[in-house]
Amino acid sequence: MALVVQKYGGSSVANAERIKRVAERIVAARKAGDDVVVVVSAMGDTTDELLDLANQVSPLPPGRELDMLLTAGERISMALLAMAIHNLGYEARSFTGSQAGVITTSVHGKARIIDVTPGRLKGALDEGAVVIVAGFQGVSQDTKDVTTLGRGGSDTTAVALAAALSADVCEIYTDVDGIFTADPRIVPNARHITQITYEETLELAACGAKVLHLRSVEYARRAGLPIHVRSSYSTNTGTLVTGSMEDLSVEQALITGVAHDRSEAKITIVGVPDEPGAAAKIFDTVAGAEINIDMIVQNVSTEGTGRTDISFTLPKTDGPVAMAALSRIQESVQFKGLLYDDHVGKVSLIGAGMRSHPGVAAGFFAALGAAGVNIEMISTSEIRVSVVCRDTDLDAAVRAIHEAFDLGGDTEAVVYAGTGR
Amino acid sequence: MALVVQKYGGSSVANAERIKRVAERIVAARKAGDDVVVVVSAMGDTTDELLDLANQVSPLPPGRELDMLLTAGERISMALLAMAIHNLGYEARSFTGSQAGVITTSVHGKARIIDVTPGRLKGALDEGAVVIVAGFQGVSQDTKDVTTLGRGGSDTTAVALAAALSADVCEIYTDVDGIFTADPRIVPNARHITQITYEETLELAACGAKVLHLRSVEYARRAGLPIHVRSSYSTNTGTLVTGSMEDLSVEQALITGVAHDRSEAKITIVGVPDEPGAAAKIFDTVAGAEINIDMIVQNVSTEGTGRTDISFTLPKTDGPVAMAALSRIQESVQFKGLLYDDHVGKVSLIGAGMRSHPGVAAGFFAALGAAGVNIEMISTSEIRVSVVCRDTDLDAAVRAIHEAFDLGGDTEAVVYAGTGR
Repeated sequence: MALVVQKYGGSSVANAERIKRVAERIVAARKAGDDVVVVVSAMGDTTDELLDLANQVSPLPPGRELDMLLTAGERISMALLAMAIHNLGYEARSFTGSQAGVITTSVHGKARIIDVTPGRLKGALDEGAVVIVAGFQGVSQDTKDVTTLGRGGSDTTAVALAAALSADVCEIYTDVDGIFTADPRIVPNARHITQITYEETLELAACGAKVLHLRSVEYARRAGLPIHVRSSYSTNTGTLVTGSMEDLSVEQALITGVAHDRSEAKITIVGVPDEPGAAAKIFDTVAGAEINIDMIVQNVSTEGTGRTDISFTLPKTDGPVAMAALSRIQESVQFKGLLYDDHVGKVSLIGAGMRSHPGVAAGFFAALGAAGVNIEMISTSEIRVSVVCRDTDLDAAVRAIHEAFDLGGDTEAVVYAGTGR
Repeated sequence: MALVVQKYGGSSVANAERIKRVAERIVAARKAGDDVVVVVSAMGDTTDELLDLANQVSPLPPGRELDMLLTAGERISMALLAMAIHNLGYEARSFTGSQAGVITTSVHGKARIIDVTPGRLKGALDEGAVVIVAGFQGVSQDTKDVTTLGRGGSDTTAVALAAALSADVCEIYTDVDGIFTADPRIVPNARHITQITYEETLELAACGAKVLHLRSVEYARRAGLPIHVRSSYSTNTGTLVTGSMEDLSVEQALITGVAHDRSEAKITIVGVPDEPGAAAKIFDTVAGAEINIDMIVQNVSTEGTGRTDISFTLPKTDGPVAMAALSRIQESVQFKGLLYDDHVGKVSLIGAGMRSHPGVAAGFFAALGAAGVNIEMISTSEIRVSVVCRDTDLDAAVRAIHEAFDLGGDTEAVVYAGTGR
């Protein structure tokens, strides 16, 4: 008898009908003899609807109250899911993040998990109940206030609970059969990946693949906990994310897959004086606004002018704040202007095998050139190469690279209803 | 500086606009120098929407999970209200029933308050914050599960917190300026009551007046806490509910007012054998189904038949359960049939002065007779007389009695928008 933690996202529990389907799947696992802990997100658009209500009341709601408000979302979905399971003849009990012992820092809206004390969950499991836990939320260690973990927090809740309960596996349910060599909506013959390392998954997540959230993969890697990414619409085996290299086949592919990202924008600071300290001042300012930048490119100083251009990419959602912060230092840094471009896309090639194969980057650039894709920025790591291009070229770039590295399978990947988030 | 507990119902916080109005009223009290604790219900139809979701998932949801679900409603309204107050420049913190220390029995759906330990609320008040508390909910003493107090629970939460915090007054906000001698929607010149005893208010509440919930008045009477019932749409003085007779004017009216109730149905058990034990068996059965009956009438046994008819009234919502329970004992009790009538209404005249004035009941029946209202059932207490009539006669009955006892004022009562709940 295994202990399985299952996580279902908002689209898996978007309405009563889907909640009942998920309940059947959970009961099937219970019938198979497993103890089951389920982590659940808020139904479909609930979080956005609550945010909209908050904005109607206040332009800048205090974090403590925003967290109180948003956590109502999982409260609703988890209670409904417990009812649906109960209706199938199985005992189920729902628990808030606080009741489940998810102890966090007190940074509202992006709290981090400090500790998990799942005493009540263990008690309920011992009594034979299916345990349902609200994802995305916890309680702060100092103030005992309700906190949220920020976007992707439900994945992190699931992994953290699985680690604290010494679960055998953490199953993350999504709307595809796991991780593919590229997004099947762009590359129809994208190949399903059966097993993948934490490291590759981290690079994929950082490069825009939406299957797993970065934080949850980091947490699982530290805990040595296997994650099984699978579809809530099928019973197919998904993708096993695990760290031990000996588990990987000796035939392990050189390249894992192609990821893409449309969520970033590019800011260019034009005519920065080419002198020590200018770049530092700029990136200090951006960091002070709590913005995570991704790639940075600085041009060679234009001959004779003593000035240079600096470009960087950042999440589109942080664009307005970054532009405002930078314009405030224009006078002191003495740069000439600011450009904002949110029509960029990023395509990345990831593979643990890249380390020992120096030719990969060259093949990558050649494929993009042959496809007529103009490269605007480049960034690389040991197991990844990424470029920024026009967003209109992004699909073509993904397909060209996938084709060039022969990543395709023989069959078309199945994309289930409800994809797109 | 006083400590004031204010309670706002669902219609007072039905949307963002109304929440902002309530926030302004709270801030006005804070500016006047008072410490303020606010108890709030779920927004408008939220509870009904959540119940509808539950019914889509399960025909008979477990009580624990239903309470978990429904308590999401106040969580949303209280967080939004705290945001709106924050927006006006005042510190506000919201607390769930559990965080506020509302300790209850573990009967889900109709828990009773055992104790209130408002340590966190006192801390927040000491720091100068406005405290917002979710009405209608608590946490069970034994299992630490989330509970709800049932209908009218928010009034009870407000009174219980006011008592535990030794508040100076508990203000219950509604959509009229307090308690009137009759429903102003039926009797346009109904007179506003400035002050009323707990006892009279209890009778009014029991007779269908919707202004205050019975449980909250009982709680306030035990605690000796004054309740100020007032409108959330005006700043007029409302009605002060208090117990000390010396506070009442020597001119205290003989009659307090007229109450009416459309929420009851009448069940008649036809042809019950006129022998010892038959009635006991019937009312044991009804009580076993956890149904609160109101009036009971047993006819004189029809000559020669050895049989009688028994009628009683009960909440319409309990009708189906009562009919099913009674039909199961038809064979053993040997009665002839069951009649169900939900077109009845109840009108009551209430007044503490009635004790010493035996002529009141006679005047009451005379007024009904003159108005052509047929009386179907009668029930009396020391300070009340009630009759059941056709529901179509109810408005006429209320007006006739109000007129006969000269209860009207000189001006028309103001009925604010949003009445009707």
